[in-house]
Order: sequence, then structure tokens, then C-alpha cells
Amino acid sequence: MKTYNVAILGSTGAVGQEMIKVLEERNFPVKELRPLASQRSVGKKILFKGKEIDVQLACPEAFMGMDIVLSAVDNQWAKEFAPAIIKAGAVMIDNSSAFRMAEDVPLVVPEINPEDAALHKGIIANPNCSTIIALTAVNALNKISPIKKMIVSTYQAVSGAGVAGIQELNQQVMALGHGKPAEVNTFPYQIAYNLIPQIGDFNEFGYTSEEMKMQNEGRKIMHLPDLRVNCTCVRVPIMRSHSISIALECEAPISVEQAKAVIAKAKGCVLKDDPTNRVYPMPLDTSDQDLVFVGRIREDIASDHGGLSLWCCGDQVRKGAATNAVQIAEILIK
Amino acid sequence: MKTYNVAILGSTGAVGQEMIKVLEERNFPVKELRPLASQRSVGKKILFKGKEIDVQLACPEAFMGMDIVLSAVDNQWAKEFAPAIIKAGAVMIDNSSAFRMAEDVPLVVPEINPEDAALHKGIIANPNCSTIIALTAVNALNKISPIKKMIVSTYQAVSGAGVAGIQELNQQVMALGHGKPAEVNTFPYQIAYNLIPQIGDFNEFGYTSEEMKMQNEGRKIMHLPDLRVNCTCVRVPIMRSHSISIALECEAPISVEQAKAVIAKAKGCVLKDDPTNRVYPMPLDTSDQDLVFVGRIREDIASDHGGLSLWCCGDQVRKGAATNAVQIAEILIK
Repeated sequence: MKTYNVAILGSTGAVGQEMIKVLEERNFPVKELRPLASQRSVGKKILFKGKEIDVQLACPEAFMGMDIVLSAVDNQWAKEFAPAIIKAGAVMIDNSSAFRMAEDVPLVVPEINPEDAALHKGIIANPNCSTIIALTAVNALNKISPIKKMIVSTYQAVSGAGVAGIQELNQQVMALGHGKPAEVNTFPYQIAYNLIPQIGDFNEFGYTSEEMKMQNEGRKIMHLPDLRVNCTCVRVPIMRSHSISIALECEAPISVEQAKAVIAKAKGCVLKDDPTNRVYPMPLDTSDQDLVFVGRIREDIASDHGGLSLWCCGDQVRKGAATNAVQIAEILIK
Repeated sequence: MKTYNVAILGSTGAVGQEMIKVLEERNFPVKELRPLASQRSVGKKILFKGKEIDVQLACPEAFMGMDIVLSAVDNQWAKEFAPAIIKAGAVMIDNSSAFRMAEDVPLVVPEINPEDAALHKGIIANPNCSTIIALTAVNALNKISPIKKMIVSTYQAVSGAGVAGIQELNQQVMALGHGKPAEVNTFPYQIAYNLIPQIGDFNEFGYTSEEMKMQNEGRKIMHLPDLRVNCTCVRVPIMRSHSISIALECEAPISVEQAKAVIAKAKGCVLKDDPTNRVYPMPLDTSDQDLVFVGRIREDIASDHGGLSLWCCGDQVRKGAATNAVQIAEILIK
């Protein structure tokens, strides 16, 4: 069996650590695993298949000899290192948003558009976490009747801001529990016992960068250039799973029964939809898993065109980031 | 100045206690305040204008001599006591959902339809908390162009389940912080670090009773018999303020600028909408207040008809319940 040299760029962050865990769990054929990070993490050790591996400095030379680089660094560092990765002959699977909308960069959710991965020129982009989770939930509907529009409200976990986000919620809850004020560093305001209706920066139309991703990335991933998405992204005091409320309209109406039937069979989805028996997706049940849980499927009673409403949850660190990236790597080596 | 005898039915619950606080704050002309509750609370004392008052047993005789009864008990008890209240010649302002849709019972948000209060036959209903908050936010839009439809996702605080809901979130956070399991009593599942997409029971179409209130009560309050509302109600680990994401379409489109201008002047609303300076409503800022905070006003980019999107927050116990009830009482005595 062929094996591959895999580097993890940003190996000590929440997504980087999870990528290493997912590579091991899914038994990805790794020859050498090379964890890379910035200077302050050099010397740390990560555990992979029972062996301790030293974290090395992320620098252009570090990519030499690598076949695949799973990148979990921010836009600036992704742009900084991309040329060196390509020069080294490796394929970069990039979790940042730096290249997602670039024309020669495929943007891939393996359950939806695996075939796009083959068109890469050295970089494949991993979509936004909420976008992956929402589209995985609705892809089966899109296959039987193309989606025209979606009205989306998200309930996004603090893990979307990485390890620092998780720590901040924990620390704020602890401080408040001891009668102390909550210290704010990572999020714009206190997140414990609060909601923040801002993720990313605002454009001139009053939408955040995070909100526009659902439309822009959704169009590219589902090959629906006319898709319209109105998204409201909200940070909630939840640890790891994002939850998403979606009202959608397809070209031809889909019945609730048909929607349930196709989602039940859809790759990457679990239908959890028996509300009278209190069966519906919840973030607490879906964390540390790779699947997107879908429920509350019902007719959109406000729709003029036979729309549907649904509610889905998925682990932001896993399917929303690390697992999706490793799945792309699996397509590459097929 | 004329003064009135006011009974509080359910005076030891979250809403009942707040009603007493609001009567005092707003300097309602109270002659006698009579706090009523079930047997197990008899003997407790409540504080009103610096005086301790004994909680008395809620029984048919307890309403004799009262002018107004502010009721904060559940549907069953509201129905049980309504005949005795009417017989005693008092007006019942009822926070339960028992009478809201009854034809001869006005359903009133004082900023929206104060004139309906005059049509009462002994009972005036206080609307659902999320409905009050959402409609107070959008009423100014409805006045310039009638609302046709709304797609709504709520983020509802635990105070919606009363004192028990607040206690449960506090206790669960504390237990989990000490490495103990979260005990579940009030909500169907753990609410700490979780979201529960169920408030109320489900109908045959997959909507909860709470979700249908926004459409049914909205139609009655705004006198819009054809209003359509698709609502998804979600319990979130927030203490007191409900937050609501709304996409709406009016008969004729309203511009973002016009929407902001009319909401800024609307009774009961505060426009908090300067997103690039991180000014938007958040539940932490809006608790313990009587106003509905509105922001994130923008064009609904998925709408075919020039729709708008917005985000609003309001204290569920106050404007969503107690304050609205006292405001109705103020109309009555005008």
C-alpha cells in the first residue's frame, strides 16, 4: 500500500490537533507525519499512533519531501506559505478562506463535489465550517431539485475561534461563578450567557464576511451560480458544534416525506427527526463526531413556493474543518 | 388621584415577582396590592414600596374587591380562576396562553394595538414573550407597509421556563464545573452548553406550540389575518433576554434607511445599529430593561420582493411578560 508524507501546518491549534487525530482514526496511509507550527510551539510534542513527534518550525524548507500539507493557519500565513508548498510539489489542503474563491482553486465538500478536487493546481480549499455543515445537510435536496434560496440563522460554537475561544468561554463561566468579572480577549464581547451577532467584519450592505460565505461558497460548491442566501451568523456559548436553522426553496417543491427520505440516505448525514418523541439534533449530541445531524424537517408555512425548513448540527472542528480536510486528502490519493 | 386594588396571581414566580417590581417602578396607582399564590407559598412575604406583604392563598374569594388581577400562572390555573375574577368584577390581565386566541379576549401589545384593550369582557391577554419582542421590533415597519411574511429563528432565554429555568442553568453550569453530571428537570435535555430546538409541544405539521404563536398571535395583534410566519424556536443557555433573527417581506418594499429611521422613532424600541462600530443588540445588554433593542437592519439579499433582515433582543421577563401586562393595566385606568 502506498504511503504519504503529510505535514500539518498549524499543528498545535484546535483544527490542527484534530486533523492529526482524524488522520489516525481514519487510518490515513501516512509515511511521515510532520507537525509544523510557529516558533513559540517548536519543541512541543504531538502524539500520533502512539509515537511522540517533535513540532518543527513552519518555514519554506519544512515542506520539502511532503506529499500533502493540511493547513490550519489563518489567511495571512496560508498566503505566506502557499508558494513554498507548491514549489515543494505538495498539495495544500487549506482551511483558511484565503483561496476559497480563487478560480483555479477547487472548494470541496467530499459528499457534494468530490470531482472538483481533481482540478487543483496545488491548492484545494476547505470551505467555511457553517457552510460545510449546512450544505452537507441540504445537498440531497439540491440533487433532486436545485436550491434557489436559503434564509439561514446560525448558532455557532466558540470553537470556531480555536482553542482560545474554548478557553475564553470556560474562563468567563468560571470567573462569573466566583463573582468576578468576565475577561474579554478573543470575542468582541463577553460570550458566557450572551450571544454575539457578529462573526467576521461587516461589508457595506451590513453582512459579515462569515455570513457572505454561505452564499459565495455555496454557489461554488454546489455549482449554483444564482443561489441566494440570506445568512445571520451568531456566536453562542456552546463549545464545539454549530447549529443552523434553514428555510429553503428549491426550483420544484419537495415534499416533507421525500426530503426526509433522501436526507436519511444522504452521505455524511444522519436523519434525527422524530420530534414528538423529542428526537432532533442538538449540539451536545453531535460533538466529537463526523456526521451532520438533520431534523425538524417541515413545510415552510410562510413560503409561496413549497419551501422547507430544517435544523442541523455538526461538529465545527471535525466535519466543519479537520475531517473535511482529511476526506479531501483521501480523494487525492484514490 | 384614583387608586386601584391590584392582585398578583402567581406572585412568587419569575413573572409575578417582576410584575410587583414593575408596578412599583412605574408608580402604578395601587391602593391595595394583594399577592396570591398556591398553598406552598402562603406565608411568604413580598416587598412592595418598602412594606412587607403576606402572600395569600389564591382562591375564588381572594379576588373580591380587586380592580385588576395580573395573572402569571399557567393555562390550567388561569382557566380555573378566570370565572371568579370576572365575578368579582375585576379585569384579568392574563400572561398564560389560555385565552389569547379567544374571540372576545383582546390580545394587546400597548405599543401596537392599545385600542383593542377597550373591547375586553373581563379578560385581556398578554401575548407570548417572543411574539411581543418580535412584533414591537417590526411594528413600525408594518405601519408603513403591511408585513406579508416573516422567517424567524429565536434564541430564547431559560427565564422563559420561570425561576426553575434560571436555577436549572445555574445548577447545571455549577455541577459541570465540578466534574459532576448536569441534572435535568425543567428542560427536556441539558441546557448548559447546549441548544434545544423545542419549546412547547409539536403539532402534526412539525411546528411547536411556541412557534405557531408568532403567526397566530401576530395576526391578531397586528390585525393582519393573512400574515404568514415560519418560526423556529430554540432554547439557548442565556438567562433572561430573548434574541430573534427575522427576515420579513412587506407589501411594498421598505428601504434600509427608511426602516432604520422609523424603528429609531418607534415606541418601545431602541435602534442599536452601527455594526462597523460593533453596535448591535445583545441579550446581556438588554436584560432588566423594558425596551426592545433592534439592529443588524439590512436588505434580505435572498428576497425577491425587497425584504429586510434584522436582529432584536428584549428582556423576556419584563417586556416579554411583566412590563407588557402592567402597560395594559395603565391603558385600562387611563
